[in-house]
Amino acid sequence: MDVMQLQQDGAELCSACGVICGAVGAGRLRIQGAGGNGSHLQPAEGCSSQPQPVGSTDSAGHWGRLRPGSGVRERCVLYIKPEPNRSRSRVVLGALRRGPAAMAMRGPGGAALRRRSGGLAAARRRGPAMAEDAAVRAQAEVVRRLKHDKADPDEIAKEVAKLLEMKAQLGGDEGKHKFVLKTPKGTRDYSPKQMAIRERVFNAIISCFKRHGAEVIDTPVFELKETLTGKYGEDSKLIYDLKDQGGELLSLRYDLTVPFARYLAMNKITNIKRYHIAKVYRRDNPAMTRGRYREFYQCDFDIAGQFDPMIPDAECLKIVHEILSDLQLGDFLVKVNDRRILDGMFAVCGVPDSKFRTICSSVDKLDKVPWEEVRSEMVGEKGLSPEAADHIGEYVQLHGGLELIEQLLQDPKLSQNKLAKEGLGDMKLLFEYLTLFGITGKISFDLSLARGLDYYTGVIFEAVLLQQENEHVEEPVSVGSVAGGGRYDGLVGMFDPKGRKVPCVGVSIGIERIFSILEQRVEASEEKIRTTETQVLVASAQKKLLEERLKLIAELWDAGIKAEVLYKKNPKLLNQLQYCEDTGIPLVAIVGEQELKDGVVKLRVVATREEVNVRRESLVEEIKMRTSCP
Amino acid sequence: MDVMQLQQDGAELCSACGVICGAVGAGRLRIQGAGGNGSHLQPAEGCSSQPQPVGSTDSAGHWGRLRPGSGVRERCVLYIKPEPNRSRSRVVLGALRRGPAAMAMRGPGGAALRRRSGGLAAARRRGPAMAEDAAVRAQAEVVRRLKHDKADPDEIAKEVAKLLEMKAQLGGDEGKHKFVLKTPKGTRDYSPKQMAIRERVFNAIISCFKRHGAEVIDTPVFELKETLTGKYGEDSKLIYDLKDQGGELLSLRYDLTVPFARYLAMNKITNIKRYHIAKVYRRDNPAMTRGRYREFYQCDFDIAGQFDPMIPDAECLKIVHEILSDLQLGDFLVKVNDRRILDGMFAVCGVPDSKFRTICSSVDKLDKVPWEEVRSEMVGEKGLSPEAADHIGEYVQLHGGLELIEQLLQDPKLSQNKLAKEGLGDMKLLFEYLTLFGITGKISFDLSLARGLDYYTGVIFEAVLLQQENEHVEEPVSVGSVAGGGRYDGLVGMFDPKGRKVPCVGVSIGIERIFSILEQRVEASEEKIRTTETQVLVASAQKKLLEERLKLIAELWDAGIKAEVLYKKNPKLLNQLQYCEDTGIPLVAIVGEQELKDGVVKLRVVATREEVNVRRESLVEEIKMRTSCP
Repeated sequence: MDVMQLQQDGAELCSACGVICGAVGAGRLRIQGAGGNGSHLQPAEGCSSQPQPVGSTDSAGHWGRLRPGSGVRERCVLYIKPEPNRSRSRVVLGALRRGPAAMAMRGPGGAALRRRSGGLAAARRRGPAMAEDAAVRAQAEVVRRLKHDKADPDEIAKEVAKLLEMKAQLGGDEGKHKFVLKTPKGTRDYSPKQMAIRERVFNAIISCFKRHGAEVIDTPVFELKETLTGKYGEDSKLIYDLKDQGGELLSLRYDLTVPFARYLAMNKITNIKRYHIAKVYRRDNPAMTRGRYREFYQCDFDIAGQFDPMIPDAECLKIVHEILSDLQLGDFLVKVNDRRILDGMFAVCGVPDSKFRTICSSVDKLDKVPWEEVRSEMVGEKGLSPEAADHIGEYVQLHGGLELIEQLLQDPKLSQNKLAKEGLGDMKLLFEYLTLFGITGKISFDLSLARGLDYYTGVIFEAVLLQQENEHVEEPVSVGSVAGGGRYDGLVGMFDPKGRKVPCVGVSIGIERIFSILEQRVEASEEKIRTTETQVLVASAQKKLLEERLKLIAELWDAGIKAEVLYKKNPKLLNQLQYCEDTGIPLVAIVGEQELKDGVVKLRVVATREEVNVRRESLVEEIKMRTSCP
Repeated sequence: MDVMQLQQDGAELCSACGVICGAVGAGRLRIQGAGGNGSHLQPAEGCSSQPQPVGSTDSAGHWGRLRPGSGVRERCVLYIKPEPNRSRSRVVLGALRRGPAAMAMRGPGGAALRRRSGGLAAARRRGPAMAEDAAVRAQAEVVRRLKHDKADPDEIAKEVAKLLEMKAQLGGDEGKHKFVLKTPKGTRDYSPKQMAIRERVFNAIISCFKRHGAEVIDTPVFELKETLTGKYGEDSKLIYDLKDQGGELLSLRYDLTVPFARYLAMNKITNIKRYHIAKVYRRDNPAMTRGRYREFYQCDFDIAGQFDPMIPDAECLKIVHEILSDLQLGDFLVKVNDRRILDGMFAVCGVPDSKFRTICSSVDKLDKVPWEEVRSEMVGEKGLSPEAADHIGEYVQLHGGLELIEQLLQDPKLSQNKLAKEGLGDMKLLFEYLTLFGITGKISFDLSLARGLDYYTGVIFEAVLLQQENEHVEEPVSVGSVAGGGRYDGLVGMFDPKGRKVPCVGVSIGIERIFSILEQRVEASEEKIRTTETQVLVASAQKKLLEERLKLIAELWDAGIKAEVLYKKNPKLLNQLQYCEDTGIPLVAIVGEQELKDGVVKLRVVATREEVNVRRESLVEEIKMRTSCP
């Protein structure tokens, strides 16, 4: 049976179970499968049906079997039935279970894989299900060994996550299941409690952006693919593309900066201060425990326009300072550098022009690996002379404030380089403005800061949280970047038909890491976070009062009171009070026969159990008064 | 030249210009192109280079030419160069310009198209560029004709939009351009002004959801493809898939309801009241002037859990009523029906079980096309007996309130049908609750309401805005649905491994149409919408006071005042005042030599030009006091 030939003739992998199926043209062979009655196969509902006894087929042509001794059921197997004028014979084509192998081969993107006929055939030969089980067992062994060796918890967490993912893809050992019930890799849902924390963070950030007079814009979650092309250097491989379903080629946005530049060029805007808070997408290796996701929020503030130097740049740093102070995340440091100083430094150290960019990305690693490693990358992999590398090594150890800038302005070599001199001059001006803002205490001019992205042209900066000074750490150690940004004067010009430039500087707050920290803190403090704002529960102590409760709650809603009612005809009072305790509702408005007769409502304060009768016409005022200062 | 053969041998369309290129295996032929030096072609940077003179090629093998007499440049043309041991010959393979034809053939999804060798060959023969220009001219003619005939403005707007889109895809007549500078089809940016309107609408909706005690959740923008499979019936074809880049197969969410059900099943939640406001994605035919986009917001409120009948359902309708009243969109009507009543009605009318679903979607069209058309679809296309259709026709004309429900409960046929009886009983209960809420005036039980989605199981509803009673329209006409929802008791069970059901009912507010209406209203009213909240501009009347301005604004920011400063060393006072006028900033804090000496700041009210000196230490209080009631 030539699978390759079948596929060339139009057979397709079933998009639900990964098994090849479909009807082959020219009346030669017909492959039956889950609903496979046309030239294409619909995602087969039958595939999620119960497995059949070994060796039998169901009406849709599925064939279930148990792998001997494992108890793990495989998905479905299809058979080939020749056309009526030939003798009927069944040929098992494949027995792929849902798993990485099947995944990779499904769908149009798997075309290349499928084309290599060896792929499917080989998978069939060695039995992908068994191969996957073995992989899971091997991974479980890795985890066991790490735990036994008391390895780095982060390392263990990473391997456990990998193991769970592999198990999830196998569908677990539960046997019957309809779906892999999960969010896509590197993404998560936000529960109401997480949303409450997230909203606090967003409110702090948005307040700050508004305090600085920013407008807000929004752009689509995807852009034309070519809009993103050539903007991210090596990181371009992390862009999510959409499937070509006819029409334009699209990609999910990778950041908010490139869409902003596209927006400016498209609308011929030369002057704007805007913020934009939205999700961006990177097919990176997720490390969820550290707050690194494939779908994550960015909170961007940018100032576009031709202005006197360093004033907007200083404001961006002020914003970082305000937000990190406001969120009370502990001590932090904002490192600042300038691409022009870096380039000038490379030049005077004897780095050839053509190697600026690649040496720059080596320098960018200095916050994660020691100088020796970076040096050997420069000399070994990137062919820099050892002298040049050592020369760079001297510079990149420098960090400080105004005095360092003054010192470098006197540096016999750097001061001769036009770019470096420009950069240092502006850096001096920047520090003067930061002094006026009173924030130089947490800002460090750091020659090792490089930033990965291609589009920066001037000032660059990055904020890191410093480890708390427990365990007698001598010098505070950075635990990760929570904000970054810089000047990118050329990006808008890349989009403008006439190449007109709009100078820009901006900052991006990395919300996920901040959110992780705050979430952990809330967990640790056992602080009870309310997930609703309900002011009052409309309750009754007696039966047959649903109608009265509904009438009262409608009055409250219409008056703007946040109110709830239990969706039961005759709820017990105790259950109603318990609901308030559980959800933090502070007041209960109780209707009863007597209260109705008297034209009053009994208002109960949940915390104190105090109860007062309030005239119905005063109830709204009373509730407002009692809940005005939450 | 067999293009088909070339492609089978591994040649690909250049993803940047849509021209076939790449290296052909087996040493037979080599096609040079933009960077085409491997088996695959990178998106060709060269393609955006300047067109070359007619007939010449640039170093990358691009060949530019001008279509005679048009002035419109084509993109690039590649030539085929046989291997050295053959005689060299140039064969023009294609001269595709960026445009629909090129688009459709680019990328992996175009494989099917490319496979049909006729496609490219035919395009080559007739010259796609010319074909596209002709199409644009034809479309322009359509628009001219409609305008001349004074056709329906909506119709004209639609055709104009189509024309603009075609022109945009052609890249306009500007000649040199680097990018197609646009957002993807069916999407848009939101400008600061639009965002201000959008925020008003969101605030009204969120207030209402919170008033009803809802929590909030968030889910990823994409889901595993199989999560969405089999939930949307015929609409599944509108789902955006992501490209298979290895790993899981993903799709953009189509609504917020299916992700909600997945979330409940995954977290084993059986009881929640939540809202979710987020963008969803549908590859539908956009009609932007009417607020129909491919990326659009949904504002969903859902109640999940086993409760006494119709109480949550009634609350959903109350919410629709509150939001539409609150937004002051004019008169509206909420149509209500029940899937069980529909199914019961189909049964007693003699529709075979197997046709329930398809007849239901015919009924769903009744708000757009007259009964006669729907009837002929039922009888003609769907093979229903004329008697059954006529019988349905009698029922679907009925709409009313409690009295209609009572009447149908007495209907000799319907009352014998178990489903219909159940549905009518619940409908009666629902109307009783709606009476308690005081909102039956805008609710109509309407037997023609069907709703498209597969997953509804009980009550369904849809809110429409009614045309204002101008032009002496006798009966108000609906201008479109702005909210909809219903009960879906089976959806969560589709995700639960053990099929456990969680009954749900929910409502979705269609924000885009509402937004369109409000935007038009703002335009018409010439209301000036502020896009920032800045309270004060820190200004100076003299030169050399930048440092003082920066010091003062830092004080204000740190005190929580929303303040701006012009990013100029020595701005003119007039320009600073003008900036306040333009952006609606109410106050100006002016520093000058004298004020600095006196320890005061001059506070100017922009509207009245009143100026007072305020002691510097009282400035924050003074600004807060003067801007507390905006």
